Amino acid sequence: MADPLLLTPGPVSTAPATRAAMTRDWPPWDGPFKTLTLGIGEKLLAAAGGAASEYLAVPLVGSGSYAVDAMAGTLLPRAGARLLIVCNGNYGRRLETSVRYMGRDVVTLDLPETAPADPAALAAALRADPAVTHVAVVHVETTTGLFNPVDELADVVRASGRRLWVDVVASLGILPVRMSAWNAEAVALSSNKGIEGPPGLGFVIARRAALAAARGNAHSLSLDLEHQARFFEESGGRFRYTPPTHVVAAFAAAIDAFVAEGGQPARFARYAANLSALLDGMTELGFQPVIARAVQAPVIATFHQPGDARWNFQVLYDALKRAGYLMFPGKVTQTMPTFRIGCMGQVDVADMNRVVEAAGAALREMGLSSGAP
Amino acid sequence: MADPLLLTPGPVSTAPATRAAMTRDWPPWDGPFKTLTLGIGEKLLAAAGGAASEYLAVPLVGSGSYAVDAMAGTLLPRAGARLLIVCNGNYGRRLETSVRYMGRDVVTLDLPETAPADPAALAAALRADPAVTHVAVVHVETTTGLFNPVDELADVVRASGRRLWVDVVASLGILPVRMSAWNAEAVALSSNKGIEGPPGLGFVIARRAALAAARGNAHSLSLDLEHQARFFEESGGRFRYTPPTHVVAAFAAAIDAFVAEGGQPARFARYAANLSALLDGMTELGFQPVIARAVQAPVIATFHQPGDARWNFQVLYDALKRAGYLMFPGKVTQTMPTFRIGCMGQVDVADMNRVVEAAGAALREMGLSSGAP
Repeated sequence: MADPLLLTPGPVSTAPATRAAMTRDWPPWDGPFKTLTLGIGEKLLAAAGGAASEYLAVPLVGSGSYAVDAMAGTLLPRAGARLLIVCNGNYGRRLETSVRYMGRDVVTLDLPETAPADPAALAAALRADPAVTHVAVVHVETTTGLFNPVDELADVVRASGRRLWVDVVASLGILPVRMSAWNAEAVALSSNKGIEGPPGLGFVIARRAALAAARGNAHSLSLDLEHQARFFEESGGRFRYTPPTHVVAAFAAAIDAFVAEGGQPARFARYAANLSALLDGMTELGFQPVIARAVQAPVIATFHQPGDARWNFQVLYDALKRAGYLMFPGKVTQTMPTFRIGCMGQVDVADMNRVVEAAGAALREMGLSSGAP
Repeated sequence: MADPLLLTPGPVSTAPATRAAMTRDWPPWDGPFKTLTLGIGEKLLAAAGGAASEYLAVPLVGSGSYAVDAMAGTLLPRAGARLLIVCNGNYGRRLETSVRYMGRDVVTLDLPETAPADPAALAAALRADPAVTHVAVVHVETTTGLFNPVDELADVVRASGRRLWVDVVASLGILPVRMSAWNAEAVALSSNKGIEGPPGLGFVIARRAALAAARGNAHSLSLDLEHQARFFEESGGRFRYTPPTHVVAAFAAAIDAFVAEGGQPARFARYAANLSALLDGMTELGFQPVIARAVQAPVIATFHQPGDARWNFQVLYDALKRAGYLMFPGKVTQTMPTFRIGCMGQVDVADMNRVVEAAGAALREMGLSSGAP
């Protein structure tokens, strides 16, 4: 039997060619591996809309959370700086926790989980707190699947003279990322999302000048991006410490496949078709999406759990698993019972239709005629 | 042409079956992956000589340096504690740097790079500084390849009532690691050394009581072992954040192969045979090892660079590369020109003989009749 496919916003199911790239051992200090790493950086800059003269793609061993942690720890000065996080989901909250560990100055703009962050609310918050020097925004909150209007939020940050960081972990390669146009100081990403690589590798793309000015800021040697960036440049493309060579090689294969597919527009189109099939089918079964379709990124859909006493989430999970699909095992929204089904990675509309079919069978197994809340 | 083999103390050349384990996508929250992760932990505890009732193997995304960083940041209290690092190579120094990033209290016992750390010197240092609460030792310093006498050093630490951490990154699976007998509070390791897995994953094996008491210590959310340990236990074997699933699966395959080969004694025997072939052959060519054979761990050998003006390290590097072997590109010792050739991983005596042959050809290419310093 084939391995189950992953219905999550990362890790995602990867292409066979991507996984096949992991079957070689690479010496990380030698020329070919450095070339591979530098090539990834170039393609990431292009995907993120940043010019190589202005920005550097700094690789970092670890997950997306490490990249976000390293971005904040390296770029937020220890004193004389305050970070405001636009917070409408778990990933905004996680960044807050991360910055509190460092003992740095951080505040949040707490907004509802089910609506895009309001640029006017950000403008008001920045007017009200002149001590804020940096603003962080999560592009796609996989808590629900909604995307925040970074174009508009970036305009507000630029007009207020603050520095902007964007967590593009769940958006890069799927939604347009325009770091030059946003005037972003940095964005953080990981290997196992929209580019469809394996997990284990992160990147922070940061303004070269900001990196150079960040010496001495970092809270951790391992997560010191400035140190990594300096070594990377001086060595012509090396990691400071042993990189996950197999993951790097597979990520290089994945980003080549991404470019060959047609880049972000093509990937968006494929994932959007998946999302439509999923939302249409689930809605037909009576399930109700948590967020409006217009603000839903094609990465994961969140549905209200039915209130009927016969509803049993585990029956749904097991039915999908039997059909060959693995969804997340629980809810992550803060205020309501929900469940999530991903639609990104190496899955297609036929997969989504089979998922809907399995969800319908699960409802019947529970004795329910509808998935209505 | 086959890929070159790696002559370094990690990453090492891995077995085909280990790499083949990377060709599946695993859902990290599902039962089978948790079982895989828990199984690795059990086998690591056995390899490290720690009882499961007393110790917990905590997985951490990242390289060995991350694991060491996380061990120190989580287990060293922010106040009322002082760490003494027994320092006779780069990895002791790196730990010092790491702890200085955290702003914690750290001192070093600086000893020569070419000799094992002297237990009497440690005893004297501990007598002289009653504020020291924790002692860190690097088991095998891959700066040179020497191993430190941890049995004796641990006796000193125990007698003085301090807590002991051991960096076993380069020793686990190769030399005997006896954390219960050492009364060690924690050891740190990575996937890509003596167990012969791919890089990208670390573990800290720590006393359960020490982890429980460490809440609030960590300098970084990503590197907070206490948080990871708590989540791991509560979830029955999950990582907090997306793990490098393919690397975890390959590490599981590697540790199974390690056990099947006969564990540490068998691996020591294989690597020791490699080391003997390498040292014998290189010595015959006139090269002089930097450290005495009696204190040389079978992971990497360090040689003095010849002083002759015709000596050219790059010629040696390129000759080995043409023969299918990649050595480290430079020296890491602080006080003298040296070069290093590894003898661990999926390499054997025939490989070592070919390496020596290539080194001899390189000498002739330089017009040298001997590799003598």
